[in-house]
Amino acid sequence: MSRKTSDIKFFFNPKFIAVIGASPAPGKISNAILENLKRTGFSGVIYPVNPKYKSINDLRCYSSISEIPCDIDISVIAVPSTVVLETLKDAGKKVKGAIIVSGGFKEMGDNGKRLEEEIKETAEKNEIRIMGPNCLGIYDTVSKLDTFFIQADRIKRPSNGGISIISQSGSFAATIMDELASKGIGVARIINYGNRIDVNESDCLEFLADDEATKVVALYIESVDDGRRFIDVASECTKKKPVVAVKVGRRNAGVNAARSHTGAMTGRYEIYRAAFKKAGIREVDGYEEFKDACRILNIHSRGKGKRVLIITDGGGIGVNIADACENYGLRVDELREVTKNCLTSKLPPFCSIGNPIDLTGSVTDEHYITALEEGLKNGFDIAIVTVLWGPPQLTERLVDKLKEAMQRHNTPIIVCSPGGEFTKRINSLFEGKGIPVFSTPESAVRAAAILCSKRI
Amino acid sequence: MSRKTSDIKFFFNPKFIAVIGASPAPGKISNAILENLKRTGFSGVIYPVNPKYKSINDLRCYSSISEIPCDIDISVIAVPSTVVLETLKDAGKKVKGAIIVSGGFKEMGDNGKRLEEEIKETAEKNEIRIMGPNCLGIYDTVSKLDTFFIQADRIKRPSNGGISIISQSGSFAATIMDELASKGIGVARIINYGNRIDVNESDCLEFLADDEATKVVALYIESVDDGRRFIDVASECTKKKPVVAVKVGRRNAGVNAARSHTGAMTGRYEIYRAAFKKAGIREVDGYEEFKDACRILNIHSRGKGKRVLIITDGGGIGVNIADACENYGLRVDELREVTKNCLTSKLPPFCSIGNPIDLTGSVTDEHYITALEEGLKNGFDIAIVTVLWGPPQLTERLVDKLKEAMQRHNTPIIVCSPGGEFTKRINSLFEGKGIPVFSTPESAVRAAAILCSKRI
Repeated sequence: MSRKTSDIKFFFNPKFIAVIGASPAPGKISNAILENLKRTGFSGVIYPVNPKYKSINDLRCYSSISEIPCDIDISVIAVPSTVVLETLKDAGKKVKGAIIVSGGFKEMGDNGKRLEEEIKETAEKNEIRIMGPNCLGIYDTVSKLDTFFIQADRIKRPSNGGISIISQSGSFAATIMDELASKGIGVARIINYGNRIDVNESDCLEFLADDEATKVVALYIESVDDGRRFIDVASECTKKKPVVAVKVGRRNAGVNAARSHTGAMTGRYEIYRAAFKKAGIREVDGYEEFKDACRILNIHSRGKGKRVLIITDGGGIGVNIADACENYGLRVDELREVTKNCLTSKLPPFCSIGNPIDLTGSVTDEHYITALEEGLKNGFDIAIVTVLWGPPQLTERLVDKLKEAMQRHNTPIIVCSPGGEFTKRINSLFEGKGIPVFSTPESAVRAAAILCSKRI
Repeated sequence: MSRKTSDIKFFFNPKFIAVIGASPAPGKISNAILENLKRTGFSGVIYPVNPKYKSINDLRCYSSISEIPCDIDISVIAVPSTVVLETLKDAGKKVKGAIIVSGGFKEMGDNGKRLEEEIKETAEKNEIRIMGPNCLGIYDTVSKLDTFFIQADRIKRPSNGGISIISQSGSFAATIMDELASKGIGVARIINYGNRIDVNESDCLEFLADDEATKVVALYIESVDDGRRFIDVASECTKKKPVVAVKVGRRNAGVNAARSHTGAMTGRYEIYRAAFKKAGIREVDGYEEFKDACRILNIHSRGKGKRVLIITDGGGIGVNIADACENYGLRVDELREVTKNCLTSKLPPFCSIGNPIDLTGSVTDEHYITALEEGLKNGFDIAIVTVLWGPPQLTERLVDKLKEAMQRHNTPIIVCSPGGEFTKRINSLFEGKGIPVFSTPESAVRAAAILCSKRI
């Protein structure tokens, strides 16, 4: 089978979808998929397939794919693993691609592996591209496809945005999706290909490289199918947009876990690191950094360099951020004398003028803006603005003032605001204005390090 | 001045408090302190002192300390820095200790430094122990003292509990306080000594070592006053209870920041690391790990070893946790054959039996308990139970079931549950039952590493 971008493009722009094993029973995977397609507003035609029913959710139900009167772009298969093969045989050449959400294959041992091989053979013969098995498939805010069969009241769906995620792990994809949705961060496409008997990370990356809806790609990788092709495709993609990746299953424990998870052989971690580096992919360290990267790259694109200006109203947290900057390889250079003198004249005497600029607990909204405007004249590449909400003179108006300041500057400004309920309420105001707020010094610095990376 | 525990004990059990510079004006620091003492239910006698008023908040106001008819345990001083000295002179020998919350001293340069030296001299002459200046002072759920002058609607106060925090930084103390309160975690005493012209970390640590209300001590350190004494005192304390510490101002950037913050010379980081190690203090890496440590040590005391059992319903997050365990030096050993066989017979075939035990998206509440009960028979030192709430058969009853399981076992069980709104709602149910929930794989593993540390 030739592997070209055009081969999988139809997965992201389907007109005709069949749902195999469709059921009217709430709680069934196939029912959740039908409901999702309705909820997201999928505008194509849906064909439920199940010999047991004449109609499901007001849609005519077909007894088999062969009965459907037209060709199908995607057949979503949610039947027991032992029935999948039959379904593909029945599809013949009527179907371009299948998303096999069913589990019970390679991850279950030798029998499952044999089943997979037979499926692969049939799919190749019938020229059907396969996503899965053992996967959630595609959540797509552009084509309004949602085969993630998890209930939307448990796992929220993000709105439309510029991030696309490729994840071998379904649970990772779903959890990150839910986190991003809760932060109001939009996505373009989320793809989970599970056992990967055909469509793999390279296919997806090649598609996303040319996908206009995708501004940033974030990859969760247990293993890579074809290392050479991956590096080629990734190198092309990183020329066009930032790509971050987390590699899990790195050492002994993780490797064993990954093998039983998607049957993946994870290979030596060092090889992956070298491949990422070669392809210009920014490696992230795990779930936390993956999340931080998605959040910051949602707003800011490539940074210029590593020089960080720190502004704070709490000295201790300022020092903590300075430490974390050094841990993550960022530079916290001193302010120039002229800037120091200017800030000394413009800010009250209790402020500590340096980097960090410490505005102390007597801070006002306006002090932040003064510090930011003057500080940024020193050519910093990024500013981390820590706002602790204890100081009584700080008001919610700071949110708008910082938003305006951000619009005046090309330099990325990252807000760090740790705390409890009051803080979290104001943080949601920031997020409502599209300003990412990080709730620990370390996460703010991780985000800055992502932006300052040469490989973003 | 001799430095004995008895010297500062009275700070934590005062009967008579004077508030110098007391004001009826809402928003004033001194007013906030009066309000706090009322709100926390301080049961001793409060003497507002301010020549401008006859009474404040229904309390008789005195024109000076000398006018007060009895000796004073703590004089809380909230007057401009230039007036502080006069206040101490006026106090004569009537006052055991002063908490000087006023700023404007060493952190402001040479004049402030001279002022501090004069204050120190007068305090020594009058045998007054000084906390501060430039500090928040004490928040104490045992004596119901609260000199943290930050409004309680912005920074919530934790309830009574076993953690005590010693912090040179006020903003760090207040922010952690607010975070702990929002998680329902109680504290015994929180101490912020700011510029530290007298009472220092060693005094506080010595007091907390013998303090029955304190089960765990967490230290935020910019610098240590007297290294030898600190090691002695800390070594005694760690024999009795776990002590964790974060050292900030580690390298160049942080060092400069710390110097201007509390005027502290931070010294070489390596020396601190060695001192912590010698004293049996578990060093933590920054704000995130400090928070994780407080949260886990609030529930669990010293762990036994490094062997971690991982249970998950999401394979990818399970691998992520296994990776993080290896990063943090924990062991993810394989299950014994007998346990594997037992789990294979008791759990459905779709589960992946290993370490992690992956219950997959078809998980039920009961599967978690089965996995936990059988897994823990392998002599693991700690269990990390990841609960992703996507799987439709999981119910809130799992919270109680896990709580019961925890009560049956001596082994610490850490819940990891990343996600969005639905997840956060259930996480608050866990927290309501006193079960700490960590919202990223990394934070769960950091917490486990704290417990498994030999030095806890």
